[in-house]
Amino acid sequence: MKGAVEKVREIWREGRRVGKEDPRRIVHAFKVGLALAFVSSFYYYQPLYDNFGVNAMWAVMTVVVIFEFSVGATLGKGINRAVATLVAGGLGVGAHHLASLSGPTIEPILLAIFVFVQAALSTFVRFFPRVKARYDYGILIFILTFSLISVSGFREDEILELAHKRLSTVIMGGVSCVLISIFICPVWAGQDLHSLLVSNFDTLSYFLQEFGHEYFEEATHDGDVKEVEKRRKNLEKYKSVLNSKSNEEALANFAKWEPRHGKFRFRHPWKQYLAVAALLRQCAYRIDALNSYINSDFQIPMDIKKKLEEPLRRMSSESGKSMKEMSISLKKMRKSSSSDIHVLNSQSACKDLSTLLKSGILNDVEPLQMIALTTTVSLLIDVVNLTEKISESVHELASAARFKNKKKSTVSSEKSDNDDHIVTILCDADKSNTVTNKSSVDSSHHVTIMIDDEDDSVHGGGEIHVHPSCVSCGQTNRDSYVLDSGNKSISNN
Amino acid sequence: MKGAVEKVREIWREGRRVGKEDPRRIVHAFKVGLALAFVSSFYYYQPLYDNFGVNAMWAVMTVVVIFEFSVGATLGKGINRAVATLVAGGLGVGAHHLASLSGPTIEPILLAIFVFVQAALSTFVRFFPRVKARYDYGILIFILTFSLISVSGFREDEILELAHKRLSTVIMGGVSCVLISIFICPVWAGQDLHSLLVSNFDTLSYFLQEFGHEYFEEATHDGDVKEVEKRRKNLEKYKSVLNSKSNEEALANFAKWEPRHGKFRFRHPWKQYLAVAALLRQCAYRIDALNSYINSDFQIPMDIKKKLEEPLRRMSSESGKSMKEMSISLKKMRKSSSSDIHVLNSQSACKDLSTLLKSGILNDVEPLQMIALTTTVSLLIDVVNLTEKISESVHELASAARFKNKKKSTVSSEKSDNDDHIVTILCDADKSNTVTNKSSVDSSHHVTIMIDDEDDSVHGGGEIHVHPSCVSCGQTNRDSYVLDSGNKSISNN
Repeated sequence: MKGAVEKVREIWREGRRVGKEDPRRIVHAFKVGLALAFVSSFYYYQPLYDNFGVNAMWAVMTVVVIFEFSVGATLGKGINRAVATLVAGGLGVGAHHLASLSGPTIEPILLAIFVFVQAALSTFVRFFPRVKARYDYGILIFILTFSLISVSGFREDEILELAHKRLSTVIMGGVSCVLISIFICPVWAGQDLHSLLVSNFDTLSYFLQEFGHEYFEEATHDGDVKEVEKRRKNLEKYKSVLNSKSNEEALANFAKWEPRHGKFRFRHPWKQYLAVAALLRQCAYRIDALNSYINSDFQIPMDIKKKLEEPLRRMSSESGKSMKEMSISLKKMRKSSSSDIHVLNSQSACKDLSTLLKSGILNDVEPLQMIALTTTVSLLIDVVNLTEKISESVHELASAARFKNKKKSTVSSEKSDNDDHIVTILCDADKSNTVTNKSSVDSSHHVTIMIDDEDDSVHGGGEIHVHPSCVSCGQTNRDSYVLDSGNKSISNN
Repeated sequence: MKGAVEKVREIWREGRRVGKEDPRRIVHAFKVGLALAFVSSFYYYQPLYDNFGVNAMWAVMTVVVIFEFSVGATLGKGINRAVATLVAGGLGVGAHHLASLSGPTIEPILLAIFVFVQAALSTFVRFFPRVKARYDYGILIFILTFSLISVSGFREDEILELAHKRLSTVIMGGVSCVLISIFICPVWAGQDLHSLLVSNFDTLSYFLQEFGHEYFEEATHDGDVKEVEKRRKNLEKYKSVLNSKSNEEALANFAKWEPRHGKFRFRHPWKQYLAVAALLRQCAYRIDALNSYINSDFQIPMDIKKKLEEPLRRMSSESGKSMKEMSISLKKMRKSSSSDIHVLNSQSACKDLSTLLKSGILNDVEPLQMIALTTTVSLLIDVVNLTEKISESVHELASAARFKNKKKSTVSSEKSDNDDHIVTILCDADKSNTVTNKSSVDSSHHVTIMIDDEDDSVHGGGEIHVHPSCVSCGQTNRDSYVLDSGNKSISNN
């Protein structure tokens, strides 16, 4: 008895958790209940029942089977079911007619052969990867309807009427589902995929921006265990990115069925989302490795770490910032080049690092510590390189999805997570020689901007601090530079 | 017209490819055809038809919907469907009875409420992760059957008979599927999972055993491009391991439904397979990174690489060999400790490497080359550590799955891939002082065996060559050492 009460309580807790995780699940459950109650009224309502009779059950069945969480999945299944029922119904009637021509003894044999051949062929076709991805359910319904119609026709002669009634009830059930799923609190797979990508950017960006802090600062806050645990939990959110592939692919598949909604066109480039997501996942693998070095039992003495602190901190935080910018640009569906600047900053930090290493700063480090340290270095270099690739991929996405242009030559001031104001100044390549800050223009429109290091502190608040940058913009079309300011906006054009 | 012919040809090619990839798919298609043709004979055969009438269609429907590729999936769906139909049928009859007590005006309203509430509740429960994994289909059928029975009961009074007929046809369809799927060329999900794990071990092992060759030998065979491409393709087979998670989880879920088959008991520890597979996947991530260093544009000069060649080659090849041993032990379902020896060898190579590094061998290497080299080193160290974890996990699996013991103190001689004979000599700890090969026994039964380096060449054929090992066996219960011989078997007990 006590065990049963405990069990019920556990189920209740699990239910609350599941509902809290995504409240749309509760709404979805209500929507399914509504659709079913509506469709089963076909049985009660006399004129409708007179029309469809027992076939009204196909409407119920359709609702139960095709009503899925997202509009795309529901639409996909609905269209699959309707088309398959139509085609299989037609072929079934044909097969039945053909068999009936052959006389009463051969007819059942012929029908059995038809059923066997179509079932075997269709089942085999379900293994084709492209078919499996989008039309699996349709083929299933095709097999079902063909068998039911061609065989049941053996008994009844009103087969055409049967096929017609079945099709119309299926369509009625399907249309109810689709309408309810679109007009009552719709869940768009496309929107979900979009948000998932944005949140993946955010979690990776958070990790990279916090990495320096975690790696270079001793755990002095041992007093507040809870705080530390919370930080750790936040940092390790990136782990969800590692295994997001199947989820993303399913969402992209559903999204292809969805009509225009919100800011998404019918043929929105969902495939490009998958490409960006794959690169992000690669980056997450590197971050997973980095994380294992933060938590490793084998700790490198802080004084050795500190030797490389400045460029390493900058590499990770600038990559993080560029991801944050990409996330913002994705979220707003605006073309933006603000991420490029951070990419360039992180690359220049890479160069600084390599200069530092060449100076022989690590010559006296013990080999095992050296290995652990240089692996961190190499992982961060990978992250920086991947960030550039991701940025390119996001630009491709932006043009494929026809994101709106940000106005050129304007100063945008966005509040990013860590309360820094990021000021982005964009200028056309042919105007770039008007930038005066020690900029030297070479013949092929490559602009190199040297800015003196005014303040080394990364988290300094209040003062203006400019990163020591050696940015050569030859790789991109836009020539740009960035000034980070504590609380002031600087326009410099 | 020409386009259509081309299209047909393409489909034909795709079909051949799909069939060749796994010929059991063709057999499966035949099995489905057979089951359907059999079940639809219920319509033709008069006595059966008299008994079931139109309800015979539920048998057809059951076959189409539950016949899956593997026995486990079919059984799982079949049991889900039968139980759900039974429970929902009972509840549906109860709901109908309750509603009919309330008089003709309230009855439809009450029924609609019942349908709404059960559909909403059940739909919500489908979001529970544990329910989703194993009982998703059952709940779907529950909603369907409850709605159909409680509502259709509004029309007919022979509702009990209807429920009974529906249940028996569902069971007949289900039993046909299960019998055909078990007795005609069965596809066991458990066996598939087992083989998948074995093949994952093999691909990783292949990569690790070939790594030394790829990394340390210059591409001198540029004459034979095809050969190189084939090698590369073989090496990169490990990539399938990176994304095998969802596949493995699905197979494990199906396998749980399967009865005893072959060497697998009913409660075979499938969960432990997933644990081993997860570790293997982690190892594959490292291997992916290693592979990117083989193919990197940034090449380290060979003379620098060569400095670390000996221990690096040994680390990777010994890890590879230990994985091969684990694969063999899994395949034969025998407990075996031959892999431990290779794990120890790879760890001793690690120690040699660290000694080598401490000697300052890399002091004059350029920093960027240093980073690339030490990253390779660090990845290989990770691989060695993971190999140990994997080995432990395989031992756990072996005892959980009650693998048979290999006889102790016997000499087994197994032919491994690269034509080396591996001679494994096992001896109990308390007998270990009979081993004479310069072994020193310390007080706590830890045996340290020092063997002089007789021959440095790793691929030497013909002569006996013994790895320079400094194996301390304190971590494991077994004390053992290994002698690699070119073509001779050595027994030394």
